[in-house]
Amino acid sequence: MKILVLSTGGTIGSAAKDGVMSPDKNAMALLVLLYESSFQDVAEFDCESVSDILSENVTEPFYEKLINRLLAVDAEKYDGVIVLHGTDTLAYTSSLAAMVCRSLPIPVSFVGANYPLKHPKSNAFINFRAAVEYLKAGGKGFFVPYENSDGKTYIHLATRLTEADFLHDDFHSLGDAVLAEFKDGKIIFSNDSRLPSQEELSKPLSGITDGEFELPGRVVLLKSYPGLDYSELHIKHDNVCAVLNITYHTGTASCADGDFGLPEFCDKCHKNGIDVYLAGLKKTDDIYETSKCIYEHGAEPIYSVSVPAAVSKLRAAYNSSLENIDTLISDDIYYETLPQEEK
Amino acid sequence: MKILVLSTGGTIGSAAKDGVMSPDKNAMALLVLLYESSFQDVAEFDCESVSDILSENVTEPFYEKLINRLLAVDAEKYDGVIVLHGTDTLAYTSSLAAMVCRSLPIPVSFVGANYPLKHPKSNAFINFRAAVEYLKAGGKGFFVPYENSDGKTYIHLATRLTEADFLHDDFHSLGDAVLAEFKDGKIIFSNDSRLPSQEELSKPLSGITDGEFELPGRVVLLKSYPGLDYSELHIKHDNVCAVLNITYHTGTASCADGDFGLPEFCDKCHKNGIDVYLAGLKKTDDIYETSKCIYEHGAEPIYSVSVPAAVSKLRAAYNSSLENIDTLISDDIYYETLPQEEK
Repeated sequence: MKILVLSTGGTIGSAAKDGVMSPDKNAMALLVLLYESSFQDVAEFDCESVSDILSENVTEPFYEKLINRLLAVDAEKYDGVIVLHGTDTLAYTSSLAAMVCRSLPIPVSFVGANYPLKHPKSNAFINFRAAVEYLKAGGKGFFVPYENSDGKTYIHLATRLTEADFLHDDFHSLGDAVLAEFKDGKIIFSNDSRLPSQEELSKPLSGITDGEFELPGRVVLLKSYPGLDYSELHIKHDNVCAVLNITYHTGTASCADGDFGLPEFCDKCHKNGIDVYLAGLKKTDDIYETSKCIYEHGAEPIYSVSVPAAVSKLRAAYNSSLENIDTLISDDIYYETLPQEEK
Repeated sequence: MKILVLSTGGTIGSAAKDGVMSPDKNAMALLVLLYESSFQDVAEFDCESVSDILSENVTEPFYEKLINRLLAVDAEKYDGVIVLHGTDTLAYTSSLAAMVCRSLPIPVSFVGANYPLKHPKSNAFINFRAAVEYLKAGGKGFFVPYENSDGKTYIHLATRLTEADFLHDDFHSLGDAVLAEFKDGKIIFSNDSRLPSQEELSKPLSGITDGEFELPGRVVLLKSYPGLDYSELHIKHDNVCAVLNITYHTGTASCADGDFGLPEFCDKCHKNGIDVYLAGLKKTDDIYETSKCIYEHGAEPIYSVSVPAAVSKLRAAYNSSLENIDTLISDDIYYETLPQEEK
């Protein structure tokens, strides 16, 4: 089994010095060396550095670089790819890469860590090992292995991951639907009906980009809170395609008068050719009068998708050179929508 | 026992018609009537309408109205107050009211619901009943009772509540530290050491405002995400006092160049007399080079406080007419900081 390891920086690619953590060029080699010395003859690794930043510093050019490297991977040569990445923006990167590179015929893993490898509490090694074991077990698709603070290691679908919580730094999948668990050195596939099957994941989907992938069309994310004054947002009309408003938990946002309401902001955006979407909500039988009003002003709900995946969905859709924007938004790009549970 | 019920609108004060939910003037009376007919001779209720809006439409004037009504409550006449409020912004309102009205010598509850009272799945009645039972059991402080989708009903401290999740519409306290559980018709106090004791909660704290409370000093909330262009935020210098940046889970934000980094934005804010704070983070031994850089540019972390309570903390501090801003920010205003767990 041959695996391509792409380092991008992050905690897993960092070292601590005098209480401050920063990227360290030897981190990837050390991790792979440690793995090879612990488990002989199971896998051969090719290592390559794509970037060298902490993941909180990720902006669009990073995505273009990583995604174009992934699209150029020789699928004949490798059985899988492991991308080493920081945890802060892991859910954004893993979901965008999965959507844009969905035509790649080999599995791709995104591996982060809570602490640098040498820290006694680091989960870098077990996360890396879980990625290799998932590949060895024949696991498919774009995935994220991560050991939480309770010692449980789950394999998440790359487009279902939510952002980690700040108290425990744990990762969860939307609705806790995971692809597999890594337990006692073994991968246990979940067969959760809310996820695509391994059979489905093994089939590459049609590409959404030809040639180099570029991200000129930007997406702006904002979160509803009481007193939000939308007039303080001066969206740049020349390159912003879409605004994504994180709603309150029932799917609403403010319809207060004027600049304190989303409806007027929607109207302004539309006049400037910018589309408005809603995330952080699910489809319900009854809706609030506020939701009704917001929909009437043209805001489009993206139901049952995590916030990072909703951002990535818009980025992928508006920058696709092959597929229709509306189709990519109304349908799943890469299994990002959690099927609604029966009532 | 005499209880003042203040209605503000919300789902608990709404009714559904043709699939659309909107505020209904009879909802509070119906709820109290239903309670009185179910449990005779336990409590006497005075009902009053303070507002009539869905809680997603809450802006500063609503807070001023509700808080001034609470500050004017006759504590000799009542044993407690129950505020009926929508769930969407419940964590923002309950935390702000607790902080600004912390000198009130009687307990105050904030009660919301997942559906209007008449809906078969509504938890309006059990939430209301849990509030009354907590008062009857001698419970103190500012609190929020809520039945989650698993059927468990917890009593949350008003400044520890986090926003509900959109999949299940469940409420949690920061670190799941709750004041009590309401189970089988009984209040079971938790005695969680991460919370103030009932003894502490029974003592009113010193007031932070004299006369009418006003909120002229605004707070702007924004969330870090990859590609955030800070130059798209045009903060109004005349009335915004503070910007609160929700960090990534490790406490970092982007330090990318220019407008894509928080440091330059901090500098701009400070030049205009606006302070910058960070929320959604905890104190750690080692910090990232990005955090170090952000701190050096004057952003102040608010550790281990929920995002809604951090917003309220800034609103209370910058609009206090009696207390020093720095003291209100560095110390707890109303027990909002979750004590750090031992390592």
